[in-house]
Amino acid sequence: MPSQEHMKQALQTYIDAFNAGDAAAISGLYADDAVIEDPVGNPPISGRAGIEEFYTNAIAGGAKLTLDAPIRGSHGDRAAMAFTVDIPGMRIRAIDVMTFNADGKIVRMDAHWGPDDIET
Amino acid sequence: MPSQEHMKQALQTYIDAFNAGDAAAISGLYADDAVIEDPVGNPPISGRAGIEEFYTNAIAGGAKLTLDAPIRGSHGDRAAMAFTVDIPGMRIRAIDVMTFNADGKIVRMDAHWGPDDIET
Repeated sequence: MPSQEHMKQALQTYIDAFNAGDAAAISGLYADDAVIEDPVGNPPISGRAGIEEFYTNAIAGGAKLTLDAPIRGSHGDRAAMAFTVDIPGMRIRAIDVMTFNADGKIVRMDAHWGPDDIET
Repeated sequence: MPSQEHMKQALQTYIDAFNAGDAAAISGLYADDAVIEDPVGNPPISGRAGIEEFYTNAIAGGAKLTLDAPIRGSHGDRAAMAFTVDIPGMRIRAIDVMTFNADGKIVRMDAHWGPDDIET
């Protein structure tokens, strides 16, 4: 199981790489066979190529991420964070939960935000 | 699937009932066969009787909950919230994710907080 420090650093890197426009650095946090469900309830995306494309598109849309509170760890293989996504003309409030494998890579990301969590 | 409004109201009721010391009101938000894992990585507790006992003990310890940011929904059956637990002599930062059944009851609660998320 990865350390608390490793998981929290990965989530901070996720935020920083996103804001730096570096989709490859974000997808590099994921295992090859990772799955993301963003938002929860929509069809998941599997595999690093699709995941990198997802972030490339999100970054191209002008989104920037700001943490709402300190990143949380767990007593297991998960870490979580509450953050705000500012996109030109829109703001989304989200909570992402990341599950890690023994190699310290993210194997699953669940993004909790609903239709009511968007402000325009 | 329960509405966004229903799920968010349940999470707000969870906070309010906890702070009012009403463990029965919290356990009433759960389905009979619900499972809580608090914190993630510890053995889960199953069933409403055990769940109510868990909250009775937490309330007896003097814990109070404060939301760190607005409650999030999803496009599915989950809602999530980041909050701070203030206990005499201790502060814990947590993110809880609740999964609901079709009747609007919580069937699963995952509490994300690790050893590094405690301040004394």
